[in-house]
Order: sequence, then C-alpha cells, then structure tokens
Amino acid sequence: MTSPQYSVGVTDVEIDDQFWSPWVTRNREVTIEYQYDQLEESGSLENFRRARDGKEGGFQGMWFQDSDAYKWLEAASYELAKADDPDLRERVDEVIDLVAGAQEASGYVNTYFQLVEPELKWTNLNIMHELYCAGHLIEAAVAHYDATGEESLLDVAVDFADHVDDVFGDEIDGVPGHEGIELALVKLYHVTGEERYLDLARYFVDLRGHDDRLEWELTNPDEIGGHSWDDGALIPTDDGGSLFLGDEGEYVGTYAQAHAPVREQDTVEGHSVRAMYLYAGVTDLVAETGDEELFEAIERLWANMTTKRLYVTGGIGPEREHEGFTGDYDLRNEDAYAETCAAIGSIFWNQRLLELTGEAKYADLIERTLYNGFLAGVSMDGTRFFYENPLASSGDHHRKGWFTCACCPPNAARLFASLGQYVYSTNRGALTVQQYVGSTVETTVDGTAVELTQSSELPWVGEVTLTVESEGAVPVRLRVPSWATDVAVSVEGEEIDHGGGDGYVELEGEWDGDRIHVTFEQTAELVRAHPAVEADAGRVAVERGPLVYCAEAVDNDRPLHQYAVRTDGDVDADHREDLLEGVTVLETDASVPNLDGWDGSLYRPDDEVGTESARLTMVPYYAWDNRDPGEMQVWPRAE
Amino acid sequence: MTSPQYSVGVTDVEIDDQFWSPWVTRNREVTIEYQYDQLEESGSLENFRRARDGKEGGFQGMWFQDSDAYKWLEAASYELAKADDPDLRERVDEVIDLVAGAQEASGYVNTYFQLVEPELKWTNLNIMHELYCAGHLIEAAVAHYDATGEESLLDVAVDFADHVDDVFGDEIDGVPGHEGIELALVKLYHVTGEERYLDLARYFVDLRGHDDRLEWELTNPDEIGGHSWDDGALIPTDDGGSLFLGDEGEYVGTYAQAHAPVREQDTVEGHSVRAMYLYAGVTDLVAETGDEELFEAIERLWANMTTKRLYVTGGIGPEREHEGFTGDYDLRNEDAYAETCAAIGSIFWNQRLLELTGEAKYADLIERTLYNGFLAGVSMDGTRFFYENPLASSGDHHRKGWFTCACCPPNAARLFASLGQYVYSTNRGALTVQQYVGSTVETTVDGTAVELTQSSELPWVGEVTLTVESEGAVPVRLRVPSWATDVAVSVEGEEIDHGGGDGYVELEGEWDGDRIHVTFEQTAELVRAHPAVEADAGRVAVERGPLVYCAEAVDNDRPLHQYAVRTDGDVDADHREDLLEGVTVLETDASVPNLDGWDGSLYRPDDEVGTESARLTMVPYYAWDNRDPGEMQVWPRAE
Repeated sequence: MTSPQYSVGVTDVEIDDQFWSPWVTRNREVTIEYQYDQLEESGSLENFRRARDGKEGGFQGMWFQDSDAYKWLEAASYELAKADDPDLRERVDEVIDLVAGAQEASGYVNTYFQLVEPELKWTNLNIMHELYCAGHLIEAAVAHYDATGEESLLDVAVDFADHVDDVFGDEIDGVPGHEGIELALVKLYHVTGEERYLDLARYFVDLRGHDDRLEWELTNPDEIGGHSWDDGALIPTDDGGSLFLGDEGEYVGTYAQAHAPVREQDTVEGHSVRAMYLYAGVTDLVAETGDEELFEAIERLWANMTTKRLYVTGGIGPEREHEGFTGDYDLRNEDAYAETCAAIGSIFWNQRLLELTGEAKYADLIERTLYNGFLAGVSMDGTRFFYENPLASSGDHHRKGWFTCACCPPNAARLFASLGQYVYSTNRGALTVQQYVGSTVETTVDGTAVELTQSSELPWVGEVTLTVESEGAVPVRLRVPSWATDVAVSVEGEEIDHGGGDGYVELEGEWDGDRIHVTFEQTAELVRAHPAVEADAGRVAVERGPLVYCAEAVDNDRPLHQYAVRTDGDVDADHREDLLEGVTVLETDASVPNLDGWDGSLYRPDDEVGTESARLTMVPYYAWDNRDPGEMQVWPRAE
Repeated sequence: MTSPQYSVGVTDVEIDDQFWSPWVTRNREVTIEYQYDQLEESGSLENFRRARDGKEGGFQGMWFQDSDAYKWLEAASYELAKADDPDLRERVDEVIDLVAGAQEASGYVNTYFQLVEPELKWTNLNIMHELYCAGHLIEAAVAHYDATGEESLLDVAVDFADHVDDVFGDEIDGVPGHEGIELALVKLYHVTGEERYLDLARYFVDLRGHDDRLEWELTNPDEIGGHSWDDGALIPTDDGGSLFLGDEGEYVGTYAQAHAPVREQDTVEGHSVRAMYLYAGVTDLVAETGDEELFEAIERLWANMTTKRLYVTGGIGPEREHEGFTGDYDLRNEDAYAETCAAIGSIFWNQRLLELTGEAKYADLIERTLYNGFLAGVSMDGTRFFYENPLASSGDHHRKGWFTCACCPPNAARLFASLGQYVYSTNRGALTVQQYVGSTVETTVDGTAVELTQSSELPWVGEVTLTVESEGAVPVRLRVPSWATDVAVSVEGEEIDHGGGDGYVELEGEWDGDRIHVTFEQTAELVRAHPAVEADAGRVAVERGPLVYCAEAVDNDRPLHQYAVRTDGDVDADHREDLLEGVTVLETDASVPNLDGWDGSLYRPDDEVGTESARLTMVPYYAWDNRDPGEMQVWPRAE
C-alpha cells in the first residue's frame, strides 16, 4: 500500500505482541464496534442521510460532527487493510454511500452547512471547521483506497478537494481555524500524483499568519452571517474574553497558530491539537519540497515544546480554557489538560520528523507518548476515554464513554488500528526497528525484499528477539531507547561489539533466518523536572523502561500527599500477572509523617514531629483509573 | 463605661505602643476619615436621606449597605470615647440624625426595604440582612452611648429592638440568615437592663436549626415576593447550585449554621463570619445564663475549629464560594479565602471565651489572629484592604481601596479603634495582662482601684515592663504566651520564682509604683501542620514570637518554589528599621536546585542533578504586599 507519509504501511506489518495486541484487538472488537453504534446514536449518520435526501434542518451534534464518521472510516479501513471482514466492510460501504450521497454536485459536503446554514458555506473559517472536516474525509479516503483499492470514498475526497482548490486562492483567500487539511492534502497528492493538492497544502501553510481573513471574520460578524457571535462560536472564555480576542478586543491569532507566519514561529502556541496537525502537515511539506526555512521553524518549535512545554508522559497543552499551550515550564499536574488527541497529534508529527531526519530522539518521544500520555486516554476495556490526562487527581477524574465533542475516542481508534506504521522505517537504506512491538514486517529496502519477525518482552523486560530473512544485503538498524542504561546485542548467539552513538545499532548482513537478540537494561529511575517547573518542585517522577509510573490510592494505605520518596532508597519491581492484565508494580522506599502526638494539635514545632519508613506502591500511568477511584500522583514528593 | 461584653472597656485603656500605636493612629487619621468619605461616595448616607425624606427607589449599594454606616458610627464612637474631637463628633451626630430621621414610627429602619420594597419587609430572612443590619445599629448605639452618654442613637436602637421584639415570636417565627443581632441584643440588655433583649437573643439562638422558616422561604419564593429567586438573592454557586440548596434541590442549612440546633452542632460550618458572630452571641448568652449545654456545644465547636479548620495565621474559612468552612484539614494556601471579617469575628468570639473561662488558650489565639490573619487585612498606609487573606500568592493578589461588599474595611476600623478592650481583664479577682500592648489601664478589681502602665517591645523583642499602683492588694496576672520558650519575671529587680502552669504568672501584692519586668524568650521556630493537611505536606511555616513569617519575591532572587528550608539549619533574625516601618527579618538556611546542566533538558535523572545552599529571606506575614508585587509563601517547602 502507499502510506505516503511513512515508509512502512499498515499492511506491511502484522502485530503480535504480548503488550500491544490486547489493546489492538480490543480496539478492533470493542472500540470500533462501539463507535459505529455511537455514529448512529449521536446522529452523525442521520445527518448524512438528511443531507443526501435534501432535507433542511434537523442537524445533530457539534458542527464538526462529520469528522467522527470520517475518523471511524479511517480506523475501520486500517482494519480492513489488515484482514478482510465482510461485516465491517459492509458498514464501511454503507457509511461511504451516505457520504457520497450527501455530496453536492460542486463536490462540497458538510452536513452542518447543508442542513442548517447552506447560505453561509465558507464564511466562518475560524470556527466552523469545514476545512478540518474535509481533511478527515481525505485521510479516510486515502486509508480506504489503500486498504481496498476501491475508489468509492477517494472519488468523494477528490471532488471535495478539487472544490476546495477552486474556491481557495480564488474566491476566498483564507486558512482553516483548525488545521488538518494540510497533511491530508499531502496524502492525497501521494495517492493521486496530482501536484495541485501539494500546492494547495503549501498555500494553506504559507498563507497562515499572513492573511487577515481570520481577523476580518472576527471583527465583521455581520458580514459572515452574524450568528457566530451569538451562538458562542467565538468560543468565549470564562473570564469574559474570547479565544481569538485579546484584553483590548484586538485579534490574537495564537489560538489557531495564526499569530505569525509559520516560518517565523518560535514557540508552540494555542490549541495543541491544531498545532500538532499543522506541524505534521508542515513536516510533510518539508519532506516533499526540502524547504530549509520551514524545516528550521519546525526544529525551533520542536525544541521549544520538548524542552519547555512537554509533560513527562508526552502529554502537551496544560490549559483547559483553550485546550492548549501556555508559557514555558507551566506544567501543572492536577489541572493538566494534556488532551488525548494532542498526544496523538504529537505522535503524528514526530513520526514524520523521524522519517524525515532519521533521528532517534523523535522515536524516543513517540515511545514515551504511546506508552503513557496516549495510552492512559483509553480504558482497559476499550469503552471509556479520557479527554484530559492530568498527572495528579484527587479522585474525581474518570474516563467517560463518549463526549459531546467526541474527537478523542475515534482518534485513538485510528491510531491503534494503524499502530504497525510506527514500528519500522525503511527509508534510509536499512530496515530500522523504531519501536519494540512484537510483529512481523514484510517490505523492501532499496528494492531488496526483507522479512523481520520481532518478539518483544517490553515494557516489562528489555528483551527483544528478531529473526530476519532477506534476498540480499540489507542493513538492520536497532534504535537504542534513551532509557536503556546498557545494551547487549548478539547475532546467532555471538555478541556484537556495537558502536551505538547516534541512537542506533547498525548490523550489516544478508539474512537467512538469523536470530538477533537484544537486551536493553532497564532500571527504575527517579526523574526531576527542570527547576523552573513550579508544579514539580521537590518532587520526583518514577520511570522504568518506556513507562512512567504513578501512585494510586487503591494501592497505598495513607493519603498520597503523606509519602515522600527516598531518593537514596530502593525501588523494587515485581511483575504481577493478576493485576491490571499483568503489570510490573514498583515499590519505592518512602517516608511518611509519624502520626503520634498529633491528638488535639493542628500545628506543632518541627523538632517535635518525626517521620517513619514506608513503601510507596506505583503502577504504570497508563493503567490508572481502572480500579477503585481515588487519588493519583505522577510526581510524589521527594524526601 | 459599661463595655458589657468585656471586663475592661475602651476608655479604661490608653494605648501607647511602638508597634500598635502607628496602626491605631492611622486607623483614626486615615481609615476612619477615608471611610466617612466612602459612606457619602457609596450612597450609604444618601440612602438614609432619601428614606428620611420619604422618597421611593434610588437605593445605592448592597441591600445591607446600612451596616457600613453603623460600623463607621461604632468605630468613630470608640474614638470619641478615647478623646473628644468636635469635627468627628459633628459628623457622628450628622449620621445619627440621618438614621433617626429615616426611622419609621414603628421603629423599623432599613433603607433598602424602605426605598425599594416596602411591602416585603421581614419576608426574606435568609438573604436580606434586616436583622443583621439591626445588630450593627445596636452595636453602634451602645458604643455611642458608652462614649458620649448621649441617647440619640441608643433611642433609635431601642425603638428598633422593641419593634423586632414585637414582630418576632409573634407575627413571625424565624431567625436571621446572617447572625450578629444576638450579641448586639446582649449588649443592649447590659446598657438598658431590659431583660427582654436578653430573651430575644436567646430566642434567636434557640430557634436556629429548629425552625423551618428559612427552608420555607427558599422553597416558596412566590410567597415572599418572588423576587429573591430572580435577582440572585438565592446566591447561586458557580456549579449551578445554591448556597442554601443541596444537589437534589433540598434545603441545607449549613451556610447559615441552621443545619442543626446550636446545642447539637459539632463542627464549624458555612459562612465563617456568620458562624463567628453566632458563637460570640452564644458565648454571651452562656455568660449571662450559665447554660451548660450551650457551653459544651461552644467548646466542641471551638475544638473543631482550632484543631482541624484554622490557618496558622488565625484565619478561617478556606472556601471562596460560600466564604466559609469546608471539611477538616482543608487548608489550601493560594486559594485560601480566610476573610478579614472572619478573623475579626474569631477575635470577638475568643475574647468572650477568654472572659468567660479565663483560659489562656483563647488569648493565645486572639494574639495569633491579631498579629497575622487580621493585621494582614490592612495596608500599611491604612487605605487598602484584603477581603481574602491567602497564605500563598503567585503575585496577583493585592489589597483594594473598597469593595462592592464593603464589610471588611469598617470592621477592621472598629477593631483598631477598640483595641484597648483586648489588652486586660479584671473579672477574676485580678488585673490580668492578656496582651502585651504598651498602654496604661485605669480600672478597679473587686472595687480596688489599680493603674498599670505597660511598655512592650513585642513583637520584635520579648521584653515587657509594667509599673503598677493600687489602693490595696490586687493580684496582677501575666499571660505566658504559648510561643514563649522561657519566661523570667522580676519585681523591682528581684527575680520571682513563678509557677506558671495554667498559662499565667500571678503576682500578689499591693503596688506602689512597683516595676515588674518580664522577659519572654522568643526564637524563630519551624512549624509543621497536621499530616492530614495536604496543602502543607512537606512544608514548614516559620514563626517568631507572635508573628507568622512569609517569603516574598521582592526579598529573594529565585522563584520561591525553588527554595527548600533546611530544617536543621540556622535562622538569623535581623531588625531592619528601614524596612516596612521597622521589622525583624528572618533568614533561614535553604537549598535550591543547582542550575548547571539543564540547558536543553526538561527532565533529568535525580542522580545527575544537585542542590546548592541558599538563604531564604522572610518578613512578617502582616507586612506582605506592601512593596513590589510578587510571589508570597507562608509555607515554603522543607528539605
């Protein structure tokens, strides 16, 4: 299949992993089924039916409700690509028929505007998400075409893309308030070979921050239908302001990354999902065009995010109000927003950077985000989801089945369904193992066929076994995760003296079922945040291998605030098959206040109170809130 | 003067203290003047004029705006009691004339109802504060009568009290939503000798928690005029509930301490100012009636407050939403409400408990609250006030000149103006020095005249000198503050071997200008909060003598969160006359993160990062936010 954005596609990889397979299987068997039912229950499909039948009104859900159906189609298509499933295929075709039926002769399809405000199409680019929905339609269409070879949805996407291309830059100059179409257009360019889609993506990227269309809309509501101000579409904030307007009522573009041309941006700003989708699309453009200036901007933005605005879980965007970034080192824990979709968007962006540069640091961040900030977003039964992923909880934050704004669940579904794309790369004259996920990959490297089977005991034990067959010489490269304190590699039982160095071990050879064994030493490690991070002052996080750990009330006798981890103490790891589908539990030495002598006292002199030894039990962060509700902390106090 | 509630009155004491006199003088010269102007500017006086002239409408301010004028009259009367001042007396008389002029023939006076809703008097006891305003009128009248011997305002108060007595228990059975009239009626009983005021106070105390009037009003808005629901008078909360109604819409009386009969209450609940005024009135009743059951309830409530719900500053009531108490050990710092008026109310209540029981613990809490939780409420120029007194700030909490709900500034003014009442007691066969405030007291103990002059170097140095003259044998008792680590007492240079024991040193004698010298040893002390207090976990407060200290950004180079106080380190005290009108500054040994090696890193292994020595500078909490704005912490982290 084509997988334009990555060098290895969904169908090239078959996952068979003791850790990930249960998640991927639940995603297929539970989540995707459940979400199909939700498309019906939430009115998404009915919106398409009404639009197809030329009805007026009766629209249900958010104004970008169509995107739920597109994301479901994308996820379902990945599943169809991996294994045929007549029942799923039938429902996919049914949904595609609805979308195609709703499409207007012009190519336009957006059931909100078709049913509710047909006269106001393309009038409110800030808010109304037509281009965002178009992007998801295109992504679904590319996935469906890749999976089935059928053009039923691709035709719809092409017609809509052509319509967008006709309208934008001609009738209208403007960019989407919510990005996403940029990266989708690059995918469409790859599938169709039509350069105009690449040009349209470049148009949207280059115009952002230059055009005054977004500002004009916000300050001339009457000219765009007037309604936007009244129905809250300006997204008023709690303090009476607006996400697009500053204290003086002036336009500020940061919410939609439109405060400056992308080339001139230095810091990641605004709505974090929008930011990730934009930067992913920009990275696609750089990959196609080699635009150095854009690449430098992307590198600056990545450095700002990863050295000043990134949770230890890989989560991003601390602020609930605008679902996004704030200032450097603002990494509040209990109030962290860290939207699941933003973690997913970060994986999209980093995978593109990895493919573009081959630098292991991007794969490290993908691994951190996959195992922690992303995975926590989904319950262990596959039916409940976090929108926000705080790093501390007083016990009242729980996953929900669905959301009014249901972006996260189907986004998680499409990532699980396409997880294979993230495990290997083939684009640097080698087959590179980027993630240690048990699987078989069949692909070619510079025309030479190669098949690699990976068996991995991660994240619990750092043991990986690979078996490789190739039809000629194919270098195999193994990423050395940043958490590995030591690495041992043997081929056919013979220890290799590897250089490592740039984050990869490279093994030359022609392979005939050779067995490569890798041991990554992983020890529990206490981690400190930068001194400027107020929320983590005097606190430590505990990591082991790719996993970030957390303490939950259910495992500990005392309220969590009473524990202080002994930084010179021991951390014991104990694998418990009976717990949370099998997890390695950590117990750290800690101290807690001695409770003697407090009767009738609220305050006492420090020299009269003492502490005593205790053990703090911690479980992987992704697994939290899957048992009795209670307090949770990723950053316990340190003694 | 009569000072019914305390054994020593305002006119018995002349304050001349190096610490307190500047505050008392500013209160007289700046605050009371400024607040008189505010009475005019805020429309308080105009409301009375309009009511006097029989006009309709045009009411300005909150519906309890009259109480501002009454509190100002009370404060001004205390000043007139201490020293005549024709200009002040003239303005007092002018305001009294307005109040008297506005009073209806029935005795009723409340300009909100007279101007706005004359038909709805006494219909909404929960919200509309008529009885609360009546209480403040009575308190002002008693103070004015005590100060001047004139009955101009007392007559108004008596007529209104008689009207209340006629209406309540007869036409209406009900209690005030906002207490205050109970303690006022006991004062009025003392001045007039009329038992029916005492009975009326007892009626309000005993009916509370028994009657269903408050519930009935809330559930039958139409029968009380209907308006209350519409104009927010139900005090809706941010989460869409109401301060009086529970999740199911059911009545909950905790906000106004009406959830149970006072005799059965175990925990301090609801709006903290209301709670303090109620308990003060209940304590007055106990003092008059010897009601054991009521006293036990008061003791239970005090124990709950002081062992589970009290800030180290003496502040109370952490929650902004209902301005009051929440659960045990909820002592959040940055979000602390800790209203200035609640600290004042706590002083009122504790002084009554002190007079009733003679137990030093009440005087200790008064001292803690006066020097910290109360005093921080007023700026060092006397013109700006805190409504909330948080124990930590990120730098955006500042005193303001006035408030829409302006309860705190005039409440502070009446406390400063009557500070002399809190320094001594005479009611246990001795002249007891309760607070170490430089002053002269002329009074009698069991009929024997005694004059004592106190010179105190508190809070900076624990040296107090007393000179006593008496016409016969009068025991002099000296409270030993709970913070004193050692006490030395000498009379005429001769060291006394004192027992101490119950918190007081007692010196028998007939005094002829004898000089008593007392040294209270005070050292800076690190204090821990109860392990159940999450907000203070891993943190210490620093106290020295009666003062609680805080760190402010202006005195420290690093962001405050980077400092961890070394609990085994030194604390140096340095008196700086040039700073904040002269304060003793503390410097504690601390550690801060070493900043080396963080370039380009957001997270690093604990064993690769280090700390270095630093000093954390702290100033008295009362003095914070009087210089450049910035961060503040009462509870820095402890190493």
